[in-house]
Amino acid sequence: MEPTFNKICIYGVGLMGGSLALACKKSNSDVEIVGMGRNEAHLKQAQSLGVIDSFSTDLATALDGVELIVFAIPVGAMQTAFEQVQFFLNDSMVLTDLGSTKGNVVEFANKIFKQYAKNFVPGHPIAGTEKSGATAAFAELFQQRRVILTPTEITDTSATKRMTALWQACGAEVVEMPVAHHDEVLAATSHLPHMLAFSLVDTLSKMNDKQEIFKYAAGGFRDFTRIASSSPEMWQDICVANADSLVSVIEKFQTDLATLSKAIQSGDKQTISKIFTRAKKARDQFSNE
Amino acid sequence: MEPTFNKICIYGVGLMGGSLALACKKSNSDVEIVGMGRNEAHLKQAQSLGVIDSFSTDLATALDGVELIVFAIPVGAMQTAFEQVQFFLNDSMVLTDLGSTKGNVVEFANKIFKQYAKNFVPGHPIAGTEKSGATAAFAELFQQRRVILTPTEITDTSATKRMTALWQACGAEVVEMPVAHHDEVLAATSHLPHMLAFSLVDTLSKMNDKQEIFKYAAGGFRDFTRIASSSPEMWQDICVANADSLVSVIEKFQTDLATLSKAIQSGDKQTISKIFTRAKKARDQFSNE
Repeated sequence: MEPTFNKICIYGVGLMGGSLALACKKSNSDVEIVGMGRNEAHLKQAQSLGVIDSFSTDLATALDGVELIVFAIPVGAMQTAFEQVQFFLNDSMVLTDLGSTKGNVVEFANKIFKQYAKNFVPGHPIAGTEKSGATAAFAELFQQRRVILTPTEITDTSATKRMTALWQACGAEVVEMPVAHHDEVLAATSHLPHMLAFSLVDTLSKMNDKQEIFKYAAGGFRDFTRIASSSPEMWQDICVANADSLVSVIEKFQTDLATLSKAIQSGDKQTISKIFTRAKKARDQFSNE
Repeated sequence: MEPTFNKICIYGVGLMGGSLALACKKSNSDVEIVGMGRNEAHLKQAQSLGVIDSFSTDLATALDGVELIVFAIPVGAMQTAFEQVQFFLNDSMVLTDLGSTKGNVVEFANKIFKQYAKNFVPGHPIAGTEKSGATAAFAELFQQRRVILTPTEITDTSATKRMTALWQACGAEVVEMPVAHHDEVLAATSHLPHMLAFSLVDTLSKMNDKQEIFKYAAGGFRDFTRIASSSPEMWQDICVANADSLVSVIEKFQTDLATLSKAIQSGDKQTISKIFTRAKKARDQFSNE
């Protein structure tokens, strides 16, 4: 058994950070969780909910004796957070993040953490809901979910092992993949669907008969657009951080949608049927896994 | 209280037709439901499940004494079905359909049913699941769902009233709107989302790392793509039947998505944020209704 962490600092106690705090407490009742973040009112609320044990907005206090720092903030806020903590690190601290993109986060970590960059284990739990904030946090969020770790050639192997053990204790399945591959895969399976959901709801909300439009939307629409309720701030950061991979899959999608639209316009049932049948087959296979 | 129907013929005993049969039985234990369709094995199964009381593939037998015929088949199959039944109609029969598009169905009804076209009440229950077939049918499918009726200037008012009463007895809320308006609203809220879901899954399934792509798709993706498991046959018909309205909203969507993609490419956080915030607001408002 890998050694666990006795004192953990969660930087950003929202849905993800808060849920990790609760999951750690559930698997290890001795763990001490310190919260850190920009908003004191939010930290107070997280403490009163029992998500964190204590908090401090003072870095030296918050990080005293901490063995693991978890950056659970939007990817656009990572650079500033890394810059803030860089002077309070020591070699026995493991560092990790929960960001949805990895390329830019790793770049910041290498540049800012310098000799401690080897202790940074880039991470991304494939879990979440469309809600945000510590009030939405729950200990089971990562149960039977995949957590992707993207250690680089400089990452300390024992740090990666300890993070793997932590996530497994929280009920997650840990997989490793290269940074760039992570960003391509997530652009397709997560970032693109979010763009489509946001963009669809936006298109409809600009229509003249907006009120009526939404009135006749059925259950399928509700499911389809659920992710458009996600945090705009978080998603704007993800888009910018993963712009290249994302724009590339958006373009692929636009080409395919244009092909479908042309087939509809010309009444080409054969092409339409081919697309729908291929999609249904892939979706049914996915949902059976 | 409007008079109910004592004997109903369901033409096409799938998810929708089967659920209407079960809902009618639940609200009126005396009703007799006759099934009709192309596939005898499916009809036998529906009978053994108690969805229909009897069935016949012979039209004269199936329609004997029937007071209401419900066409619960893909919109692309309506014309042929209307042509088949046209010689077995009488003036005391009410006719209706459950089709997802109304323009083409009304056109066929007017042309084929001739003097009985006034007895045809075009209908569209805003309900369904991604499943198909009588085995997926359940009596509660229409509970608290909206059913849109689109009577035209020739539709007999008492036929519309009887259909309204039938749907209300099944727990649905009935609304009326003009045929063309129905087709525009549904293109935006139902047909477009289905195109995006089918097209997204198709785009991903054509990627090289297909297996891996779907492996890292999370819960949001599952919800988002659920409607891509819908019947390809049904949806190819809907696309062709509502091509004009659908292509028009697809084009609107593509323009909006291109704007978003351009903003992502140029790192224009302000534009991205504006789109996401507007979408989240509309989605949250919709889900609270």
